[in-house]
Amino acid sequence: MRSVEELRALVEDELSRLPFAAELGRLEEALRYSLLGGGKRIRPVLCLATGEALGHEPRDFLPAACSLELVHTFSLVHDDLPALDDDDLRRGQPSAHVRFGEGVAILAGDALLTEAFRLVLGYPAPDPARELAFATIGMIGGQYVDVTTDGELDAEALAELHRLKTGRLLEACIACALAVAEVPSSDWEAWRAFARELGLLFQIVDDILDATGTAAELGKTPGKDEAAGKVTYVSLHGLERARELADDARSRVNERLNALPADTSVLAELVSAIRERRA
Amino acid sequence: MRSVEELRALVEDELSRLPFAAELGRLEEALRYSLLGGGKRIRPVLCLATGEALGHEPRDFLPAACSLELVHTFSLVHDDLPALDDDDLRRGQPSAHVRFGEGVAILAGDALLTEAFRLVLGYPAPDPARELAFATIGMIGGQYVDVTTDGELDAEALAELHRLKTGRLLEACIACALAVAEVPSSDWEAWRAFARELGLLFQIVDDILDATGTAAELGKTPGKDEAAGKVTYVSLHGLERARELADDARSRVNERLNALPADTSVLAELVSAIRERRA
Repeated sequence: MRSVEELRALVEDELSRLPFAAELGRLEEALRYSLLGGGKRIRPVLCLATGEALGHEPRDFLPAACSLELVHTFSLVHDDLPALDDDDLRRGQPSAHVRFGEGVAILAGDALLTEAFRLVLGYPAPDPARELAFATIGMIGGQYVDVTTDGELDAEALAELHRLKTGRLLEACIACALAVAEVPSSDWEAWRAFARELGLLFQIVDDILDATGTAAELGKTPGKDEAAGKVTYVSLHGLERARELADDARSRVNERLNALPADTSVLAELVSAIRERRA
Repeated sequence: MRSVEELRALVEDELSRLPFAAELGRLEEALRYSLLGGGKRIRPVLCLATGEALGHEPRDFLPAACSLELVHTFSLVHDDLPALDDDDLRRGQPSAHVRFGEGVAILAGDALLTEAFRLVLGYPAPDPARELAFATIGMIGGQYVDVTTDGELDAEALAELHRLKTGRLLEACIACALAVAEVPSSDWEAWRAFARELGLLFQIVDDILDATGTAAELGKTPGKDEAAGKVTYVSLHGLERARELADDARSRVNERLNALPADTSVLAELVSAIRERRA
């Protein structure tokens, strides 16, 4: 089994060599700028680790893994736009629209999303692409709720928003791996249950970091949610309780993980990294 | 064989009943606003007419046809944004960003593109979705050239821009139909040659209409290309010569059409409608 760091290196190498469509011309520069700006690659690594836990060679999952990172990057580029979250800083660098202008950033996001589908459509069956599309539509629906409601969400509505905006794509990292590995559908639910709990953990940690991290640590503007009057786990429950909720979520993730009929040691390492991350 | 008008009615009915993902919530209103605003439906009708010319039931091509209209609508919603073509009028109505705000228009465009893939991924094989992705990436590349170059294009570069920005999606209307019908690849080139010439005809007519149409006829702001200093067939060649070029293109389209081993009578009707259209 490869370690999380080895899988991350595999992803980084593949992303740097992705052959974007020649038709994009110089727009490719904007795609590479946003894609290769030093993300943590949690999603693609999760996909590869799931593939390896299922007993397959991680390389077979690289197209799906990279397509997930492309969709994630598309969402960052569009969400950072002035008309949406209006964030000038991303992964420690000027956001795409600051660097290239808004028009090019919109087109770069569109191209990242389309390239994601081109990549995942390289598999012989349409199932991995279906999982990606399902996740992406949920993510967009979640972002719509996020930008159109201010401080009006209760705990239940907040959980639903996160399930869509963050959870769906994290779940897809696992679902795409299951689809590529052609795992029988009867075995999916145990994996999906793990994925749902992992998505929740990820979001609670994200909210804690937004409230406590510095721009240097996060590579993006901290305190944005609070400044925008957004409901978060921290605003709803306070910092201490949010940390307890994160630890509870981590316990549930590990329970689900231990219930899986697979060697989940690398996935467990990844869960720890998600809980302990500082950015 | 169904007439162009019958096929258009089939498309209009299907578009009005498309089941968008529940996760989009109230964002669906913005998608329906842009999608059901009275377009000419040239692309989906072209897809259905190709399917019927190949000897199949047009209904089998409705998912592909509607996915093409969704991608077309996505491109209109994003291209109309202030940071791109900055157009306040579309299909005779306020553009999506005027009606719903820029942030919602960006998300609506993203959702239209993703729903297009969800729809076309309903086919058992991934081939129709691959054709759609190939066309979309070319369209985005063409739009990038269009918004980043001002009046610097010669005739050859202009033709290449149109081949991408307009031609690729028109070609995909035919390619998606061939993919759905599982036409052997050896038979594709004759169809693709027809599609390429049709794309060129479409664009020359578009440029003529931009120079000569009224807002009431077009349902969008006329004279935009000239005002933006854009190179068009009219600016390059003058109006009279552009009309001659359109007639030449139409002749070549009909030559290609007559060479196809299929009943192309409805496609011929559609070609006439494209040449004679006033909007």
